[in-house]
Amino acid sequence: MRREAIEELKSIVGDEWVVSAREAIEGYLYDETPMPIRPEACDDVVVVKPGSAEEISKILRLANKYLVPVFPRGGGTGLAGACIPTISGIILSLERMNKIIVDVDNLMAEAEAGATLKDLIEAADRAGLSFPLHPGDEGAQIGGLIACNAGGARAIKTGIMRNCVKGIEVVLPTGEIVRLGGKVLKNNVGYDLMHLIIGSEGTLGVITKAWIRLQPKDVASATIIIPFEEREQALGMVPRIFREGIVPLAIEYVERNLVEMVAKSLGLKWPCTSAEYQLIVILSETSEDALLGTLERLLNLCEKSGALEPVVAETRKEQDEILKIRSEIYSTLKPNMVDILDATVPPARLIDLIETVNELERKHGVYMPVYGHAGDGNLHVHLMKWNGWTKERYDELRSIIYARALELGGTITGEHGIGYVRRKYVEMVLDRKSIELMRAIKRIFDPNNILNPDKVLP
Amino acid sequence: MRREAIEELKSIVGDEWVVSAREAIEGYLYDETPMPIRPEACDDVVVVKPGSAEEISKILRLANKYLVPVFPRGGGTGLAGACIPTISGIILSLERMNKIIVDVDNLMAEAEAGATLKDLIEAADRAGLSFPLHPGDEGAQIGGLIACNAGGARAIKTGIMRNCVKGIEVVLPTGEIVRLGGKVLKNNVGYDLMHLIIGSEGTLGVITKAWIRLQPKDVASATIIIPFEEREQALGMVPRIFREGIVPLAIEYVERNLVEMVAKSLGLKWPCTSAEYQLIVILSETSEDALLGTLERLLNLCEKSGALEPVVAETRKEQDEILKIRSEIYSTLKPNMVDILDATVPPARLIDLIETVNELERKHGVYMPVYGHAGDGNLHVHLMKWNGWTKERYDELRSIIYARALELGGTITGEHGIGYVRRKYVEMVLDRKSIELMRAIKRIFDPNNILNPDKVLP
Repeated sequence: MRREAIEELKSIVGDEWVVSAREAIEGYLYDETPMPIRPEACDDVVVVKPGSAEEISKILRLANKYLVPVFPRGGGTGLAGACIPTISGIILSLERMNKIIVDVDNLMAEAEAGATLKDLIEAADRAGLSFPLHPGDEGAQIGGLIACNAGGARAIKTGIMRNCVKGIEVVLPTGEIVRLGGKVLKNNVGYDLMHLIIGSEGTLGVITKAWIRLQPKDVASATIIIPFEEREQALGMVPRIFREGIVPLAIEYVERNLVEMVAKSLGLKWPCTSAEYQLIVILSETSEDALLGTLERLLNLCEKSGALEPVVAETRKEQDEILKIRSEIYSTLKPNMVDILDATVPPARLIDLIETVNELERKHGVYMPVYGHAGDGNLHVHLMKWNGWTKERYDELRSIIYARALELGGTITGEHGIGYVRRKYVEMVLDRKSIELMRAIKRIFDPNNILNPDKVLP
Repeated sequence: MRREAIEELKSIVGDEWVVSAREAIEGYLYDETPMPIRPEACDDVVVVKPGSAEEISKILRLANKYLVPVFPRGGGTGLAGACIPTISGIILSLERMNKIIVDVDNLMAEAEAGATLKDLIEAADRAGLSFPLHPGDEGAQIGGLIACNAGGARAIKTGIMRNCVKGIEVVLPTGEIVRLGGKVLKNNVGYDLMHLIIGSEGTLGVITKAWIRLQPKDVASATIIIPFEEREQALGMVPRIFREGIVPLAIEYVERNLVEMVAKSLGLKWPCTSAEYQLIVILSETSEDALLGTLERLLNLCEKSGALEPVVAETRKEQDEILKIRSEIYSTLKPNMVDILDATVPPARLIDLIETVNELERKHGVYMPVYGHAGDGNLHVHLMKWNGWTKERYDELRSIIYARALELGGTITGEHGIGYVRRKYVEMVLDRKSIELMRAIKRIFDPNNILNPDKVLP
C-alpha cells in the first residue's frame, strides 16, 4: 500500500491504531472458514482500529481517494470468508468500539459494533433482561452478527438477528454516517435500507452501532432429549410441537453416533443411549409453573409420537453438559473437515435432505455427519477429508446437496451467508434479474467498489 | 389513455377484465384516507384485473412501452393515499388472484396477493392454525398488507407483517417475475430484496403471492381493562409487563372519555368506569392453565403498579364487545376527522408524546383524541375538524407532533406509511443521503418510473 495512504490513516486514528507488522496482523487475516476451502489472504494489508464512526467515515473517504479496498472485520468467527482480505487493502477492525448501554424501560440495548456477543449477553443479564439468540461463538461481534444476519439454534422463539435489530448507525462506503431506525418497534418511512444492509456481509456499509431489542429473562428452563428409533418419527414430531402451541427456545436434531463421539472426545457421556435419532428441545419460560405446564404437554406429545423414554435435564449442570456436547460438534469435527454446509429447507422437508446426504454417503463410501436446527429446517452437513478426494469431487458433492435443497423449496445458506467461498453457487439460487439488481445496488452504495469488493455477489 | 393501449390490455387479460365505465371504476379511485387530506384521483384511468403473474408481467411491459403509470391496488384500506391514481394510468387490481393454500406441516400459508386478511384468518383457522396479526380492516388484501408492512394492535407477540412473511413472488416494474425467499425460516443468499420490497408501498414491484408463517391456535384468551388515575401509572406499567415476562397479544392505551363516547354511539357500554387512563391487555395462550398463570401474574403486577380494580373479560362475548368499541374509534371519529397520525416513539417515551398533544389542545382550544398501541410506542392522534381551521394550520400542528416524535427518538409513521400524503414530511426523518439512495433504488427497479410513480419518495 502507498506510504502516503498509511500516513493519512495514522493521522486519522493515531499511530498506535495503524498496524502493519506481520506478527501483529496475522490474527486479522482469517476467520473460522475451514482451511481446505478458505481463500488465501493477501498479507500486503494494514489493520486499522478506529475509535468512532467519524474516523471510519474519514477512512472510507481516503479509501475512495486512493481506490484502496477496505475489509471490515468483527470477531472473525464467520464460516464463509466474508472478512478475509483477498487483495491488498485496509482491514478495518471495530474492536475498540465496544460500548453497550441498556435502556431497561424500552428493553433496548444500544451496542457499538465491536462489542461481542458475550458482552451483549452479560450486559442484558446485568440489567435483568436477556438477549436470547446464540449464533455460536461468543467472540462474534455485534457488527458482524448483524452484517451476516446470524441465526443459530435459539432462533425459534425470538427469530434471527434481523428480527432483533431495530436500528443501526452505518457508515456508507462513500463516507456518510447514516442512522436507520432506532429504539422503535414500528417504522414505515421509505424503503427499508436497514434490512438491505442486514445480511449484506460488510459490502454495503460499515455498521458502527445498533439498537437491539432485549427480552425478559426466563427464570425456568429444561433441556429434553427425545430418542426415536426412526428418523421419520423424530423429524415428524417437530411440526407437532409447534401445532401444540409449544414454542421452545431451540429444537435440535442430532444422531447418537455423532454426539457420543463428541462426548467421548470431551471426556463426557451423552445421557441418552436408547436410540439413534434424537431431538434436543430446550424449553425456557418466565415462571416455574409455566415450565412445568409446557413440559407436561411436551412429554404427553412424546408418547403420542412414538418416542422412547425422554431424558429430562433440569439442573443447570446437566443442561450445560448437553449443550456443551452439542456445541462442540463443530470444533471436534473441524480438524478433519473440508466444509460445513447450512442449507435450509421448509422444516417438513428436512428429512428428504438428510436422506439425500445418506444416499451420497452410501454411494461414495464416505462419512458426512449431520445435525440440524430442526425447528428452522436448517441442516448442517459436514464434508470431511477423505483419502484421494480432490477439490472437484467436493464441489460436485456440494452442488448435489445444494440442488436438492433448492428442489425441496429451500436455499443453500440459511445462516453462514455467501461471503467469499459460496459466490459461485449464488446463480443456482437467484435468477439473473435479482443478481443484476443486487449488482446495481452495490454500485449505488459503493461506486468505486472499495468496500469488501470481492464478496457476496457472484 | 391511448385506444391501442386499452386494446392491448384487453388482449392480455380478456375484455371483461378491463373496466373503464365511470360507475364501475368509482370504487377504485380512493382508499380510506380521510377526505380532507386525500389527493384528488384522476378519472382518466382504466381498471385492469389480471388473473396471473404472467398477465401482470405483460401489463407492466406494455406500461413501459406506452409510458403509462400503473397503480397497484389491494383492498383499498390504506390511510395515506398510496393506491390513489393521481394521474392518468392503469389501476391494477389484484382481486381475482385470491387463492390460499395452507401447508400445515410447515405452518405456512401460500397466499395470492388479492386474498383478504379475512380469507387468511379463516384459511388458517380451518387448518387448525392462526394468523395472529390484525392490522385493522379485514378487507385489506395480502399484497397491500405486505407492500405497506402493516402492523396493528396485535404486533407484540408475533411482530408486524415483515416478521411473518418468509417469501414473495413479485413482478418487477420491468416485467420480470421474481421469487424471493419461500417456505424457509432462514435465508442468507445475497441482499435481501424481499425486505426492500416489503414496505415499498407498491413502488418497487407488484407482489403477486406470499409465503406467510402461521402460528398455533391459541385456545384460551382474556381481555383485561386496567384503570389508573394517572396517565404515568398506566403507561409506566407497560415495560413492567414485559419485564415480568408477560407477552400479551396486545397492550392498548385508551382514555375513558373517548371509549365511552364510542361505546355510546354503538349503543354499548364501556365496562370500566373507575378512572380515566386505561390499558387494555389481551392475553392469549395455548392452554387454560397457561392463561390462568399469566393472568395471575398480571393481576399481581396491577396491584403493585397503582392500578384500580381491573375488569377481566373472559367470555367471547364480553371480549368481543370491548374489542368492537376499541376498533370502532376510527370509524366513529372519521366523519369529523381531518387526519389520523401514527407517529411511533420508543415505548417509554409515549407519555411525552401524549403530553405534547395535550399541550397543543390546551394552547389551541381544540380536541385531539388519542389512543395507542402502547406496547409498540405507536400513538394514533386524530386531527379533527375545527371551525375556521385551514389546511396550513393542520399542517403546522402535524409538523409539531412529528418533530416531537423525532426528538423523542421516534419516527413519523409506524404503520400507515408515507403513500402520497406524507411525502412532504420524509425529509424531516431521513437525511439527504438516505433519500438519494432510495431514489437511486427506485430508478434501478423502475427506470421509466411507471409503477406508482408519485408515492413514497419526496
